[in-house]
Amino acid sequence: MPADEPKRRILILGGGFGGVYAALHLGKMLTPAELAETEIALVSRDNYLVFQPLLPEVISGSVELSHVIAPIRRMAPKARLYTREVEAIDASRRIVQLAPGIRPHPLALHYDHLVLALGTRLDDAKIPGMREHAMPFKYLRDALRLRHQLVLALEEAEVEPDPAERRRLLTFVVAGGGFSGVECIAEMNDFLRDAVRSYHRVRESELRLILLQRGDRILPEMTPGLASFAHKLLAKRGVEIRLGAGLAAVSAESVAVADKATGAVEHIPARTVVATVPAGPHPLLAALPFPQERGRIVVNGHLESAGWPGVWALGDCAVVPQVDGQMSPATAQHALRQAKTCAQNIVHSLRGGKERKVFGFTGLGKLGSLGRRSAVAEVFGIKLKGIVAWLFWRGVYASKFPGLDGQIRLLADWVMDVFLPRDITQLRVFRDPAVHREHFEPGETVFDEGDVGDKVFFVVQGEAVVERDGARLATLTKGDVFGEASLISHQPRNASVRALTPLDAVVVEREAFDELLGHLPGMNAQMQALMSSRLGREVNLAHEMTTLAPRPIHERATRARPTNAGKV
Amino acid sequence: MPADEPKRRILILGGGFGGVYAALHLGKMLTPAELAETEIALVSRDNYLVFQPLLPEVISGSVELSHVIAPIRRMAPKARLYTREVEAIDASRRIVQLAPGIRPHPLALHYDHLVLALGTRLDDAKIPGMREHAMPFKYLRDALRLRHQLVLALEEAEVEPDPAERRRLLTFVVAGGGFSGVECIAEMNDFLRDAVRSYHRVRESELRLILLQRGDRILPEMTPGLASFAHKLLAKRGVEIRLGAGLAAVSAESVAVADKATGAVEHIPARTVVATVPAGPHPLLAALPFPQERGRIVVNGHLESAGWPGVWALGDCAVVPQVDGQMSPATAQHALRQAKTCAQNIVHSLRGGKERKVFGFTGLGKLGSLGRRSAVAEVFGIKLKGIVAWLFWRGVYASKFPGLDGQIRLLADWVMDVFLPRDITQLRVFRDPAVHREHFEPGETVFDEGDVGDKVFFVVQGEAVVERDGARLATLTKGDVFGEASLISHQPRNASVRALTPLDAVVVEREAFDELLGHLPGMNAQMQALMSSRLGREVNLAHEMTTLAPRPIHERATRARPTNAGKV
Repeated sequence: MPADEPKRRILILGGGFGGVYAALHLGKMLTPAELAETEIALVSRDNYLVFQPLLPEVISGSVELSHVIAPIRRMAPKARLYTREVEAIDASRRIVQLAPGIRPHPLALHYDHLVLALGTRLDDAKIPGMREHAMPFKYLRDALRLRHQLVLALEEAEVEPDPAERRRLLTFVVAGGGFSGVECIAEMNDFLRDAVRSYHRVRESELRLILLQRGDRILPEMTPGLASFAHKLLAKRGVEIRLGAGLAAVSAESVAVADKATGAVEHIPARTVVATVPAGPHPLLAALPFPQERGRIVVNGHLESAGWPGVWALGDCAVVPQVDGQMSPATAQHALRQAKTCAQNIVHSLRGGKERKVFGFTGLGKLGSLGRRSAVAEVFGIKLKGIVAWLFWRGVYASKFPGLDGQIRLLADWVMDVFLPRDITQLRVFRDPAVHREHFEPGETVFDEGDVGDKVFFVVQGEAVVERDGARLATLTKGDVFGEASLISHQPRNASVRALTPLDAVVVEREAFDELLGHLPGMNAQMQALMSSRLGREVNLAHEMTTLAPRPIHERATRARPTNAGKV
Repeated sequence: MPADEPKRRILILGGGFGGVYAALHLGKMLTPAELAETEIALVSRDNYLVFQPLLPEVISGSVELSHVIAPIRRMAPKARLYTREVEAIDASRRIVQLAPGIRPHPLALHYDHLVLALGTRLDDAKIPGMREHAMPFKYLRDALRLRHQLVLALEEAEVEPDPAERRRLLTFVVAGGGFSGVECIAEMNDFLRDAVRSYHRVRESELRLILLQRGDRILPEMTPGLASFAHKLLAKRGVEIRLGAGLAAVSAESVAVADKATGAVEHIPARTVVATVPAGPHPLLAALPFPQERGRIVVNGHLESAGWPGVWALGDCAVVPQVDGQMSPATAQHALRQAKTCAQNIVHSLRGGKERKVFGFTGLGKLGSLGRRSAVAEVFGIKLKGIVAWLFWRGVYASKFPGLDGQIRLLADWVMDVFLPRDITQLRVFRDPAVHREHFEPGETVFDEGDVGDKVFFVVQGEAVVERDGARLATLTKGDVFGEASLISHQPRNASVRALTPLDAVVVEREAFDELLGHLPGMNAQMQALMSSRLGREVNLAHEMTTLAPRPIHERATRARPTNAGKV
């Protein structure tokens, strides 16, 4: 049974390193008597902590998915975990509202102390098509989804006869040449070159992996020497590195790359695009009255917000001064130690003392994995590379992993990875939402005549043309619907549609469309009117749907387009 | 590059034990010369085989998710795998059409020999609400999803103050008392009773696990003595077993159970319902001209369809006579051996011989796990139970698992499971489709006044009432829309809606609704007219949406319903 409202609450927002370790340290520092009247509340979307440095290894499968995470309830057993999203923060009333769970009831928590550890969010609004078609690489589901996508690409390439489509399927692009992008493409490269051997009709030489870096070298966090080592190693292993190349747009079929020097834009056909840049501020922070700098909360050396006693911030969402005059970089090692300092200061404050600890950590070093027994490292000024750095990398992270059981599982995975073949299975748990958006670059195909009609499109912005046998039938623009006829009649597409300009569309999948057509008042009449005006005759939808029953095999679709419409 | 169309094709439909082992044996039996002109084509929705007997262990986490599956490409390397769904079979033209992949292009395959190994499908159309709210337990994603649901229920119960809702969350129902249902609830029980210790506010005594069995005993496949042993053991471990109890309806909030003797229907409040019954025929089979019996393909002792040379069927989708006069039961051991006989006969047929093998296997025995070091087994007439049966069970399945690497991973999991705490993390990769259906039983709440408005409803059938402060405002029936006002205005629900009769609704989630409202032609006007008529005044939607901007914290929602509207 739930207890009554606690006498006081320390409310920590965010289940990353900063938030979880703040809860963990508070649980250790407070006495049982203090804990009896103080709730350490931790709000996290997931009930686990993702051990970020190991996330790329999930792609290649050298570590099991469930072994790169640690259950927060076991790490911080004295804290009360609210597995919810944060919906709103009211600083004047000291209330935080959490998103509803299974039932549509909001949950509001008052706080005495507030610890902001919300991290960053991928800023995907600035680049056209990025939200719709680029895959982020930050959370556990992203790693799972990327792995799924890599296997899907191989599976599809195995049965795809069209050479252009095969190239699209076998081209993999990662945008961002920092630690995250480099580790991600290194693991993708290892996995794909290994997995391809199980496919009959895909050759390793057909694989193309491209790393885009806007700056003039990869790994700007490292010294030029180590970065150059990493660059050469990745290139030798088959990764194409493009410097001075920025992501300009993403569609389902391609990635537009802008040359920083000339401004020229090249479209690279690719079905898999991972974006590791840029990290933007958490959207909830902007509305808060606490002092900020470019969307992050500015705190003093005690991790407290100036003028807002009881409000603390740490980790990637905070600007934290170091004793050396620098600002703390956004790394796990800093967040962990900020969490400890913050917990100490909250305890001092609860006990009514004036004493405060100053955050005194300035960093131990930097580590980056390059996959397959190689890494780069700078520790206490010493530079390591290759297998020595890699062994050091694994040693550091195995020892830092929370909990002995987690460490044992991790080591067992690493041992088995040496001897056993890697998993090439594809867990299909992802599907496009029934209503989603798609972006098309000029000239790209929305669908071809003869295709299976599996979705309907509403133009949000841009222009498209409808063509049949090379003749332009119509131009579509904002507010237009297209593709509905094929869904209603269960016939293949009777015309092609191509984007004339950058095109954004809302897409509704067949199943959802059928439900809406059947039950959304007015929709049926609307579609009937639309089809009647298009066909120039009175259309009865119910009639169209029954008389044009599905034919078992669409011979037309498979015969009309022999180069890419199927194998037979 | 894809090769040309093969000279001949043996087309196997289905990636379960029957299909994969048929491909494997054909690959071994055909000579290199024969393989050069014969494509062994295997069509499977997934690129892995699920080792079904171990699937329940994924629930408790004693085996890793990825360790109960084996990659088909490695098991049957000589076969060509098409990772697609089967869409249509044309027996007269000998063509099978596969569903499109990433691109909306169908793929059609001609065949010389056709092997039907499509298994069964959950028949969820007969019981109201089953498709919408009961979870199947058959595929890998089902196990993953069930595990997710168990952790979700614990997470929600931890923060839920309403006692009635806590009971709903902590009640878990499994329908079906055969092997599948018994193994499933045994693992659920083990997992929940173990995991609950990591939660502060959920007591083990609050957990309720119920097994529904229509017949008069569980495990009808076993002898009464072993079934009775299993019954007592599960009961001792806290599972409530209801005999003579059939599933009558399922909603988001409850399960309706019909007493077989009296016909009385009881509603048990529960948020988690797993259905392991009934298995229906694969929907594609009904339209085929081959002889059938209750939706399954009838074959002779050679596994061939009478009158249809070159058409073979095996496994759960086939009626296969045994030499002892019985029909083969739907088990893995039978499917495996049918696959071998079938492969031999196809090879004989390809070589032009008249010789045929007769399926001569009659079963080795039966095994059922009861979780936590107990099982029941009947092997060669010998009956085993308890830990002896459990060790035998593990030994049999470890040795049968495909591939040495898979066996090693399995054993490593089992060893670690003895020493290390079980994982209690919750992988949140599932979400309701943006457009889906919900079922409500009479009297159940669709939403309450003050709730967050997160979806809109279209009535498909049944009746509902709108109430405010106890007064009935309106009755809703087929074709009516409700719940849209709250989504448009971003205000909490201003009235409650309850089902009067069994109610089915199409539900559209906020995000999809916003996209449709913004871009589906006519929808905006439609909603505006609806709201105007409801409010009795002219409404301007754009105006409503901007003036009624979201308030940061819905105080009303949290204050008005103190018993269950949140903690503060």
